[in-house]
Amino acid sequence: MLFEHRLSTPRETFYDITAQVQSSVAAAQIKEGLALVYCPHTTAGITINEMADPAVISDLLLALERSFPDRPEFKHAEGNSKAHLKASVMGSSASVIIEKGQLLLGTWQGIFFCEFDPPRSRKYYVKIIGQ
Amino acid sequence: MLFEHRLSTPRETFYDITAQVQSSVAAAQIKEGLALVYCPHTTAGITINEMADPAVISDLLLALERSFPDRPEFKHAEGNSKAHLKASVMGSSASVIIEKGQLLLGTWQGIFFCEFDPPRSRKYYVKIIGQ
Amino acid sequence: MLFEHRLSTPRETFYDITAQVQSSVAAAQIKEGLALVYCPHTTAGITINEMADPAVISDLLLALERSFPDRPEFKHAEGNSKAHLKASVMGSSASVIIEKGQLLLGTWQGIFFCEFDPPRSRKYYVKIIGQ
Repeated sequence: MLFEHRLSTPRETFYDITAQVQSSVAAAQIKEGLALVYCPHTTAGITINEMADPAVISDLLLALERSFPDRPEFKHAEGNSKAHLKASVMGSSASVIIEKGQLLLGTWQGIFFCEFDPPRSRKYYVKIIGQ
Repeated sequence: MLFEHRLSTPRETFYDITAQVQSSVAAAQIKEGLALVYCPHTTAGITINEMADPAVISDLLLALERSFPDRPEFKHAEGNSKAHLKASVMGSSASVIIEKGQLLLGTWQGIFFCEFDPPRSRKYYVKIIGQ
Repeated sequence: MLFEHRLSTPRETFYDITAQVQSSVAAAQIKEGLALVYCPHTTAGITINEMADPAVISDLLLALERSFPDRPEFKHAEGNSKAHLKASVMGSSASVIIEKGQLLLGTWQGIFFCEFDPPRSRKYYVKIIGQ
């Protein structure tokens, strides 16, 4: 089963999509399996990290900007090469186990859509396999 | 099939869990499929890298610390934001192919649980799908 | 179904393997499922990023080199620790959804084999699951 979700991303941040992914798992009526959360864009990604304290996300954004800054040598005409790099560093997808019809996340884990080149109209897919 | 493993992590390093993951594959009696090794924590991750020379792991740890240092601007009250970042950079899971009842790893590859916020009592899951 | 592909990598760059992966999907005659593209080497990885402008790739390579440089403290005797790090940062695999017998990639996405320790004779696997 394949689900598509849309979101608009006014600024560079991590958008918590956990509840939406869980809604797809519920709709699929799968008890045990895997969910692949996939980002079809090249300047955005998917990661799993803490959903409880928003300061974690703002710290991650600040640190990613420092570790992967814009560089004068970049040649890509769109000028968003650092966004492409951050996307590959976070990754284009995250896999989550489904158990008893639920995402088997850790206590503090959430699933995030990482926007690195805002503002955009984005989408992501949730592919569910299992029984 | 879903397996849970526990480990204690006295220090910040990569713990080789390859044999434990292989034991889950053997217990599952799957001949062909996939194994998802999943970390349910937000300051630890999973990666695949060289298992032969321990200097590779110590070099990776040193380099991760240099590339993703603590920063005075961090606001997360627990003070472990760099561990959250390293976790997302390494990733929350690794997928490995199962072929002939074995993990299809490269000659030098091992599977590692990456602890970035020690000491902890941790766990990870191995989800196996296939036939 | 499991497919193995070989490539030679004369220099440090990202090699576009999208068409080869798609050819495995076609050969598998799977309509809906997942493809795991897996690198069995420890100084190379797999990522998904833009395939349209080669400047994106050259910018990514330059930025990875700056963010993850060689360091005099490295102890691994082979002297390629930065390649091991870049490999773990990009990741050992990428998962792609298969829909209607095709890889469900975004408009600008391609699948890349990332060589960080050239020149080499390399291989990668494509594991396909589904119906």
